[in-house]
Amino acid sequence: MKKRIEELVHENIRQMKPYVPGLQPQGDGWIKLNTNELPFPPPPSVGEAISAEMERLARYPNPTSAPLREAIAGIHGIEASQVIIGNGSDDILNLLARAFGGFGRTTSETFPSYSLYPVVTAIAGGSIESIPFGEDFSLPVEALLDKPSDLLFLTCPNAPTGVRFPLKDLRALAEGLDGLLVIDEAYVEFATSSALPLLRDFENVVLTRTFSKAYGLAGLRVGYAMAASPVIEILDRIRDSYNVNRLSQAGALAALAAQPVYDEYVWKIQATRQQVHDFLVTKEWDIYPSEANFLFAEPVSSEGERGPEVAADLYQWLEQRKILVRTFPKHPLTASRLRISIGSSSEMDRFMKEITTWQKGA
Amino acid sequence: MKKRIEELVHENIRQMKPYVPGLQPQGDGWIKLNTNELPFPPPPSVGEAISAEMERLARYPNPTSAPLREAIAGIHGIEASQVIIGNGSDDILNLLARAFGGFGRTTSETFPSYSLYPVVTAIAGGSIESIPFGEDFSLPVEALLDKPSDLLFLTCPNAPTGVRFPLKDLRALAEGLDGLLVIDEAYVEFATSSALPLLRDFENVVLTRTFSKAYGLAGLRVGYAMAASPVIEILDRIRDSYNVNRLSQAGALAALAAQPVYDEYVWKIQATRQQVHDFLVTKEWDIYPSEANFLFAEPVSSEGERGPEVAADLYQWLEQRKILVRTFPKHPLTASRLRISIGSSSEMDRFMKEITTWQKGA
Repeated sequence: MKKRIEELVHENIRQMKPYVPGLQPQGDGWIKLNTNELPFPPPPSVGEAISAEMERLARYPNPTSAPLREAIAGIHGIEASQVIIGNGSDDILNLLARAFGGFGRTTSETFPSYSLYPVVTAIAGGSIESIPFGEDFSLPVEALLDKPSDLLFLTCPNAPTGVRFPLKDLRALAEGLDGLLVIDEAYVEFATSSALPLLRDFENVVLTRTFSKAYGLAGLRVGYAMAASPVIEILDRIRDSYNVNRLSQAGALAALAAQPVYDEYVWKIQATRQQVHDFLVTKEWDIYPSEANFLFAEPVSSEGERGPEVAADLYQWLEQRKILVRTFPKHPLTASRLRISIGSSSEMDRFMKEITTWQKGA
Repeated sequence: MKKRIEELVHENIRQMKPYVPGLQPQGDGWIKLNTNELPFPPPPSVGEAISAEMERLARYPNPTSAPLREAIAGIHGIEASQVIIGNGSDDILNLLARAFGGFGRTTSETFPSYSLYPVVTAIAGGSIESIPFGEDFSLPVEALLDKPSDLLFLTCPNAPTGVRFPLKDLRALAEGLDGLLVIDEAYVEFATSSALPLLRDFENVVLTRTFSKAYGLAGLRVGYAMAASPVIEILDRIRDSYNVNRLSQAGALAALAAQPVYDEYVWKIQATRQQVHDFLVTKEWDIYPSEANFLFAEPVSSEGERGPEVAADLYQWLEQRKILVRTFPKHPLTASRLRISIGSSSEMDRFMKEITTWQKGA
């Protein structure tokens, strides 16, 4: 009598809940403000670099993505041995959980944050400790240090709130933590500062970054991490040996070389973010100060009501008008709010127009 | 006192030996016969499909690679729910080890075969049982069934020998095995038949495939697996949610649509393989009958000598002439041989010319 598949699979994997990515609607005409993508196309030089690699597609890529590591190290003033490239930063978060978290370890996160952390922890055979933010979404440093963690995931600027935590709080965490502090800087290019200075002082700090947000290359799957060389060496042992393909390596390198284009894109997003923020404030929505490419905002209905039902109602109302935003209905801290990615000026003009209509109770 | 990084990392990962990929020499002028790549460029339609995706690079890819799953299912006459796409088939081998092998499970392989299997098993917290082939490299079915495995990796056609195992042996394995039988068909397009018929009869058979070999897209990182839907569902739970990027999905889809081009490429490789095989036989080399895009051959020196030193000497002699092949010096079954990928006609002409020179004792 053969074993059934459910008997063969590891228990933690049989029981876990997989990550649910944001909706990727098919067909045209959607205004996609739900997965924090950049609304601008890559500069032509990125396409040219990718095209130039096409004739070499039969050959395996550079296994370590060496030229890309060197370029990133040069930009941030660190050694290439302090950089690892991933198939998206998700790849690296997964490696971190495998190497340092999961089974037999204490893995922690602040809650709410990126919902992938509990998933990679569960796959690694553990369950995550979720330390909730306070009402004001400030970093609960003491609570995070009260219970020792082997691995702590922290998104900064935070998602879904957009709040950036003060460097002194991050430093206190790095100092007090026995384990590894992973600061997920997916949105850092939209912020006023980074936790990069901590790399100099702490062997237990890992910064993860991505080309999916400020570099507008979500379709290409490139992320990276910066940390002390011994941490990178460990992650390198367990990554797929050809984890980043030829075209992605070439495209990301070209993107770095086109930095002024991206600086301008980021300024545009910041300006539009301010404009939408100010608009929603005039509508009396509650909004956290965002240093990312999205706003986390509590809508107010025509009757002056707030709450989960109001947020859910507006979500559907927008979806019917082919505008997608993101909801987080499962937790009291987040259920009354929408996370709205900052799109292009014209997309956000349309969004604001629809909000005005909705709030009139049309 | 902080913990050191070596104390934080899981013991199995601290101790494991990482996979060592084949040399990827920089610079021009190399004849690369060491990593079983296809020596032909992709047809223009692949490049065109990739270019058409460039303007959508800011958007996340299809998370499940749905169109590619459907195309593959259609070609093989199975359901899309029986297909998963990986960032190379290495990605899927890794998922299989995580879900079904490693810690607390018995994971097995035939030896020698793809040296990634022990690595993905070690990362998953286990160690692999290596069942050696006999001298004639036939499949040791009884030995493989003697010790029950939860997960058994088998390369067919085999690497590094090129030998294809009879379907009746594979069927006996699938029938007798309580656990999962993974048949790694990386080279199957160069062979006379596949284990595909077993999918109909066994829920515990997984076939893995790749676009890196017969489709000449090693630089693009796309592989896939076919299995019963419950197995695929489990692998889907633990893969990265956007594991295959936009350009890779588009390129692989276009490659499938250009099948006649690849059929011709495969015929060329098979013809050249026969030609090189016959040549080496006239030189009295010992060679297994290969159904892959490489030959596993035991060289004979000008003095009529065979053995590990002869193989190592020839490897270096070829390398000095910018021809790269692969050696497996660590095991008596393999140390006297070279694995020679089949390149283009002109590359193999050059290879044969050099062999003639070497064997004259020049």
